Amino acid sequence: MELIIGPRLFSTWSLRPWLVLRRAGADFETREVWYRTEAEKAELRRLSPSGFVPLLKVEGETLWDTLAISEWAAERYPEAHLWPIDATARALARSATAEMHSGFHALRELCGMGPGHPMAGDARAQAPADPGLDRDLARLVALWRQMRARFGAGGPWLFGDWSIADAFFTPVAARVRHYQIDLAAHGDDGVGAAYVAALLDQPDFREWETAALSPNAG
Amino acid sequence: MELIIGPRLFSTWSLRPWLVLRRAGADFETREVWYRTEAEKAELRRLSPSGFVPLLKVEGETLWDTLAISEWAAERYPEAHLWPIDATARALARSATAEMHSGFHALRELCGMGPGHPMAGDARAQAPADPGLDRDLARLVALWRQMRARFGAGGPWLFGDWSIADAFFTPVAARVRHYQIDLAAHGDDGVGAAYVAALLDQPDFREWETAALSPNAG
Repeated sequence: MELIIGPRLFSTWSLRPWLVLRRAGADFETREVWYRTEAEKAELRRLSPSGFVPLLKVEGETLWDTLAISEWAAERYPEAHLWPIDATARALARSATAEMHSGFHALRELCGMGPGHPMAGDARAQAPADPGLDRDLARLVALWRQMRARFGAGGPWLFGDWSIADAFFTPVAARVRHYQIDLAAHGDDGVGAAYVAALLDQPDFREWETAALSPNAG
Repeated sequence: MELIIGPRLFSTWSLRPWLVLRRAGADFETREVWYRTEAEKAELRRLSPSGFVPLLKVEGETLWDTLAISEWAAERYPEAHLWPIDATARALARSATAEMHSGFHALRELCGMGPGHPMAGDARAQAPADPGLDRDLARLVALWRQMRARFGAGGPWLFGDWSIADAFFTPVAARVRHYQIDLAAHGDDGVGAAYVAALLDQPDFREWETAALSPNAG
């Protein structure tokens, strides 16, 4: 099994299924591809049916899309409980995850992957003033506060035990850190900031950060 | 159970879970909300945690996001087989569905919901010339051809029996019709056009179209 990812320094999409497969206990290789040169772009087109990363090569098939790979892992590794066991928590976790999957465009575009190395925490930038970004951040804080209030007893995660939802919000935590976003200015009472800190403190994420800054990372 | 949708004339997102719940055989009400006036917008904010439609109100909970509602339905109505039974077909169907869920931005923006009534087939528009749109259409045609070649024997759908993936591509079919897009100019050999025709011919979709044009639709 091989997970083909974009550059660890920049590819927020790639981080998500990588975290999920780690939590699943899957035995997989990771291949990082870049897409700066024409040769690199041609190789990506050859590998990827959609033209995007990440991709999971497994049993002769190519699965694409972060959420589809995550759902595949949830089915394949049921003992890892990648979604909450409780049906209601699971439905809400899928709602939050899918909202992240298709939304928050202002956050993505305005707090993007340059300048610096947002995923690796080695540089800082300033978030621009923008009403769309303000809306995205207020929504994130509200969502996190609601779900933490309801499911957060006994641990740092959004829906009780760690779930795919936490993987999906980990790149957001990296953006909050890199762009020095003060969540308190967006309705946070400390719950959101603590959640961001927990996401950044995941050992798997810290391993990703270290590899992102290593020129010889495989 | 109540599905809260946007205007049937415009809300491509709302159509998807409505089709899914229909195929599931779910017993549900549909409430159409608009968001033109400040009062309507305030009501939507009251109803919707994300500010978006559709929403599923079920058993005291509010589920949001089209894909999360669809996954919930797949779990709750297993006998409806809303995802393919075969694990590989299911993983690919989820990949295609999730790609639609997060991507095809040029198609969405340039072949949007005005002018006319794209979802109701009562008007026609012209797709603009745009390289991003060309890429999206070429990708759609390639995806459809690949999946139809592999799973399409014996029926019109993308992954064998009807699945959530077909629900997700139904609004695309409405766009192709409304914007008079010639798929042959984007690599289609007729397979894509036939798939679009099958999607538009779904009795559930035709019922949606009729309701969209009825001012008294509930």
